Amino acid sequence: MIKTMHVGEERSYKRVITKEDVKKFGELTGDMNQAHFDADYCSRTPFKEPIVHGMLIGSLFSKIFGTEYPGEGTIYCGQSLKFIKPVYPGTELTVKITVKEIIEEKNRVIFSTEIFNEKNELMLTGEALMMPRKEKKDE
Amino acid sequence: MIKTMHVGEERSYKRVITKEDVKKFGELTGDMNQAHFDADYCSRTPFKEPIVHGMLIGSLFSKIFGTEYPGEGTIYCGQSLKFIKPVYPGTELTVKITVKEIIEEKNRVIFSTEIFNEKNELMLTGEALMMPRKEKKDE
Repeated sequence: MIKTMHVGEERSYKRVITKEDVKKFGELTGDMNQAHFDADYCSRTPFKEPIVHGMLIGSLFSKIFGTEYPGEGTIYCGQSLKFIKPVYPGTELTVKITVKEIIEEKNRVIFSTEIFNEKNELMLTGEALMMPRKEKKDE
Repeated sequence: MIKTMHVGEERSYKRVITKEDVKKFGELTGDMNQAHFDADYCSRTPFKEPIVHGMLIGSLFSKIFGTEYPGEGTIYCGQSLKFIKPVYPGTELTVKITVKEIIEEKNRVIFSTEIFNEKNELMLTGEALMMPRKEKKDE
């Protein structure tokens, strides 16, 4: 698999996180922090309105890794995330991964992982470390 | 807030992720990778059985940060995650955060973030960067 990959290759998709998605994520993770749910509370905070959980945004990359690129059989080794700007429900996000470095002898690939809003502003950045499936013909 | 925090302080809770939780997370994030859902497929992989999404496990810390410690008003600036061992549905996990470093002049706190299984084996490790709420009396 890794032999067919190239630095600079990228994949992306668009996604809107709804208030309903935020509710589901809050219930699933137990993080019912009022910063995500209480409009009145939020009006008195720097963000002014309820925001999407950062970790929900950061969880949008694995769909690409596991099902598209590198795809089936890929093992997720690590992920770093910097939450740069608050994301509000309803924002159309672009979820993008780019091959940053290929470490062929260790069968590892480092990706840059980024989330943009409609204005192409960077909302979240980070890196993912992946172990693509080893093809028998590669061994 | 930050003036009352101390290096070494920790908080933890226990959580079992069910197959139903994995299904909800897959639907929410769009990651329906067969590694998380297809037992027959998984029997032919190194993990043998469907595993929990790493990012779901990594999303279990924010409940503590946002609602308990440092608590209300905390801003999540970043999170790193290393997925060390596969987590299977039904495992009783211990979700633990520990104050690692306090950067008072920048109002930032670095936490070590860890997930253990019932045998106290480390399944996931990483760090979180937090900005606790500023109290007016601190300013």
